[in-house]
Amino acid sequence: MGKYSIGIDFGTLSGRAVLADVATGDEVACATYAYPHGVMDKTLPDGTPLGRDWALQDPADYLEVLRQTVPELLRKARVSPEEIVGIGTDFTASTTIPALADGTPLSFLPQYRSQPHAWCMLWKHHAAQEQADKISRLAKERGEKWFLRYGERISSEWEFPKLLQILEEAPHIYEATEVLVEASDWIVWQLTGVNSRNRCAAGFKGLWSKEDGYPSREFFAALDPRMERVVEEKFSGISLNPGERAGFLSERGAELTGLPAGIPVSAGVMDAHACAPACGLDGPGKMLNIIGTSSVHLVLREEERCFPGICGVADGVTIPDYFCYEAGLCCVGDFFAWFVDHCLPAEYAAEAERSGMSKHQLLTEKAKKLTPGESGLLALNWWNGNRSVLMDSDLTGMILGLDLQTRPEEIYRALIESTAFNTRMILDAFRENGIEIHRFLASGGIPGKNPMAMQIYADVLRIPVQLAGTTQGAAMGAAIYGAAAAGTERGGYGSVHEAAKKMGKVQDMIYQPDPEAAGVYDLLYEEYRRLYDLFGRGENDVMKRLKGLKGTILQQKNNPKK
Amino acid sequence: MGKYSIGIDFGTLSGRAVLADVATGDEVACATYAYPHGVMDKTLPDGTPLGRDWALQDPADYLEVLRQTVPELLRKARVSPEEIVGIGTDFTASTTIPALADGTPLSFLPQYRSQPHAWCMLWKHHAAQEQADKISRLAKERGEKWFLRYGERISSEWEFPKLLQILEEAPHIYEATEVLVEASDWIVWQLTGVNSRNRCAAGFKGLWSKEDGYPSREFFAALDPRMERVVEEKFSGISLNPGERAGFLSERGAELTGLPAGIPVSAGVMDAHACAPACGLDGPGKMLNIIGTSSVHLVLREEERCFPGICGVADGVTIPDYFCYEAGLCCVGDFFAWFVDHCLPAEYAAEAERSGMSKHQLLTEKAKKLTPGESGLLALNWWNGNRSVLMDSDLTGMILGLDLQTRPEEIYRALIESTAFNTRMILDAFRENGIEIHRFLASGGIPGKNPMAMQIYADVLRIPVQLAGTTQGAAMGAAIYGAAAAGTERGGYGSVHEAAKKMGKVQDMIYQPDPEAAGVYDLLYEEYRRLYDLFGRGENDVMKRLKGLKGTILQQKNNPKK
Repeated sequence: MGKYSIGIDFGTLSGRAVLADVATGDEVACATYAYPHGVMDKTLPDGTPLGRDWALQDPADYLEVLRQTVPELLRKARVSPEEIVGIGTDFTASTTIPALADGTPLSFLPQYRSQPHAWCMLWKHHAAQEQADKISRLAKERGEKWFLRYGERISSEWEFPKLLQILEEAPHIYEATEVLVEASDWIVWQLTGVNSRNRCAAGFKGLWSKEDGYPSREFFAALDPRMERVVEEKFSGISLNPGERAGFLSERGAELTGLPAGIPVSAGVMDAHACAPACGLDGPGKMLNIIGTSSVHLVLREEERCFPGICGVADGVTIPDYFCYEAGLCCVGDFFAWFVDHCLPAEYAAEAERSGMSKHQLLTEKAKKLTPGESGLLALNWWNGNRSVLMDSDLTGMILGLDLQTRPEEIYRALIESTAFNTRMILDAFRENGIEIHRFLASGGIPGKNPMAMQIYADVLRIPVQLAGTTQGAAMGAAIYGAAAAGTERGGYGSVHEAAKKMGKVQDMIYQPDPEAAGVYDLLYEEYRRLYDLFGRGENDVMKRLKGLKGTILQQKNNPKK
Repeated sequence: MGKYSIGIDFGTLSGRAVLADVATGDEVACATYAYPHGVMDKTLPDGTPLGRDWALQDPADYLEVLRQTVPELLRKARVSPEEIVGIGTDFTASTTIPALADGTPLSFLPQYRSQPHAWCMLWKHHAAQEQADKISRLAKERGEKWFLRYGERISSEWEFPKLLQILEEAPHIYEATEVLVEASDWIVWQLTGVNSRNRCAAGFKGLWSKEDGYPSREFFAALDPRMERVVEEKFSGISLNPGERAGFLSERGAELTGLPAGIPVSAGVMDAHACAPACGLDGPGKMLNIIGTSSVHLVLREEERCFPGICGVADGVTIPDYFCYEAGLCCVGDFFAWFVDHCLPAEYAAEAERSGMSKHQLLTEKAKKLTPGESGLLALNWWNGNRSVLMDSDLTGMILGLDLQTRPEEIYRALIESTAFNTRMILDAFRENGIEIHRFLASGGIPGKNPMAMQIYADVLRIPVQLAGTTQGAAMGAAIYGAAAAGTERGGYGSVHEAAKKMGKVQDMIYQPDPEAAGVYDLLYEEYRRLYDLFGRGENDVMKRLKGLKGTILQQKNNPKK
């Protein structure tokens, strides 16, 4: 009889489960299931229109992932349910579900089906920018110590801006919310019947820290008197680190998954952080970049240090004994997909089809013939705002240097380069704060598929780039946390460290910086930095003014007077 | 027996001839012929590679236009050769042909066939930027009075930068050049055997003025000692205004066209200026914008006044008795075509095909549903450099405000708007110099095809926009000049004024500014101006640095060391 751990990664568009061999970390089977409702950004299922920058999901889709993928894994791998020793899950964050005290999402109740604020707000729901700004301003005014942990900027993607949006725009929904639960905790709740609150999401998205807990009552009261007791009223759940056992598979959990009740289940974790144990991030001196629709950068270090450039720092929530620093880009895969979906000419699409390549492959084939600097293009990659180091979702994208000879592959390459430049901004912020990085680890969907992009990263960053040994970093990490939650006595491991050491993997091949390319990229990076400061730090706020005007115009268009 | 005039417009990609009824100005027939060699910007016909920013043509193609289109006109209209009372031609400018003293282009001679500098340099040959800068610097240093007429910037598109490029890079070709002739004069020479030099091209592209003639020998000697006597050595030809009779159709001209020898032929004229008599530009207070691949703005006025923002001013060369001011944009139709050719997704191309629309029509249909400001986008339309008011071909295009929701029609509309904003920059430069404009006339290929673009122009410029009554403005204008050259005694008119009054046309329909849209565009224009100054006037020279780097990289790539 083998010993296997299941890891389930709940992404933006689908859930993906892997069955991992606990002894070797080998991926034995994989199953994915796309959310039937996907991302709702125009209307609710009943046609109720959504505002600008909204992005909702239906938690019922998450349950369907369990029903579909887990039995498929066992079938594919010909493994019996008894061979499963542990389960781990990871999730996008902050993806928030307003729920009743028993965990029932408000959106499941008929009386709230047509109310947008009652639904699960996906991480990329960006309609709470105003509220995020309000929280930032107040924290700054009051000199809140915890504010420094977040680089002195609160993102609209986080828990409290979203909750404040509900309070301000739909107070009755706020009232009805008995618990605001991260989807990463909600799914564990569904599996185990235990209401836990993972410290990873709480730390990075919920303003919580091991040292100081949540912000004070006074702070929340100053934000809105109705929120004075928000923590006691709406943030129940036991606090756990990922890899700690939240509970055992309940009867309901067994029914959802087709597994026997009683299997240990790990506390939840944010998707990016789940990659750490799977992808070789085992200590200081390395940066792990998980590159998917968006991208996250993780760095481990013994001490806490707060500086602008990080989106958060939290203690022990990724790998025990280390502070984990997080930074990120708001769009990477999404960004390249935007280009392929909306800017790729028919002629290229036909060429890709003829040659049996994906559109991305075709563009990459053409783009890799270009020398750095040859296109004359430079982009600011803020198509979905800027997370690090500016933390500003009102910034937008720019491309400069276009001429009548500009070709699609040149733009495509410039977009990839711009994400590398932004990553160097992040790396430099760490370095300027005394945190040296000498190895860049890459995981997620893109690195394995696009060697050109990885070489560009090595050249721009001027450090070696090494890929994770799995393309399912998050799901594999979840399986590792599952194996740790099982404990040695149940066929798992005694710690996350131990599980990661046995089950985590990196590839042998390393992308080394090319000095000539790096020299050209140094010049381009200088230009990138200048434009970054110009448009990102208030010298010319044209992006914000245009976005503001757009908002006004769209509001007038949707609600014409008379 | 009717009386007809033939006008032939030599454009960037083809020649287009119209047969006009002299009494009414009605277009009786039209014929076009695409240049077999098109624009040569990569190689010569024999494969000799061309440098960056080169653009050449084969003058033999121009003769072929005569051979093909003139007989076709007569055939189509069932008009006999005896009914033709006059011929006029217009041409792109500055399009320069290095030739022998008898007008034979050097590129016709076997020994020069493989030498790029011996060929006809098209207006959009931009490889003489260095030389243009040198001329500008010297003129500024020496305080040359004539320099003011050109807004204190010499364009790389003009005669002397091109000639200086030949001298510096291929002195033997300079030596062999017995006359540097504008294509607009060369074609008249082929028709009549008379070497004339039209004052329109000479004034706007050749640094010549009625008042002062050419720059001094001292100036040219300071530029390059070998150029001291360049005017005497290489600028022969009698000086004429368009509408003046250069001569009569010669035997050779008769052979080329199939018409009887002896028909009066007007002096040449630049294509944009030919539009003036055809499109209602009959006096001060109006701006005529000819919108084709690039765009030209013409304004008439009694006095000469020099200010930055104009590319030139010349006396009597368009409509007698008026100074004609010229400004322009380096790309408009080319710009929109770039987008459709290189950025339009397959899905849109398929939709256009299904619905029987051109791609431009489809994009326009979608773009016209957008409200000003709704896209959040703003572009700097410098895909081919900036002519007015910066006169700088090293500037490049930019688009800002992009996000993951940005759709092709939004970008398309932003590109159109950017050309309108640039036009307002030009209009404002005139206004700031006391030259009021209260009517905007539009001609060329785009205005009639794109009412949305014309409404955007009216809204951005805040003045009524009226379209020319012909879509063949330049060819019709050439026919008007032909009718004037004929004179009353030969069935034509006694003056360009008189011919224009009878044969020129504007449409009744007028695009009035919409106050609400204009209000939003005022805000966007403010942003445009700021970015215009920022990137165009030296505050951040990133565009130039990127273009410089691109040049270096391409040079290294094409000539690798070792």
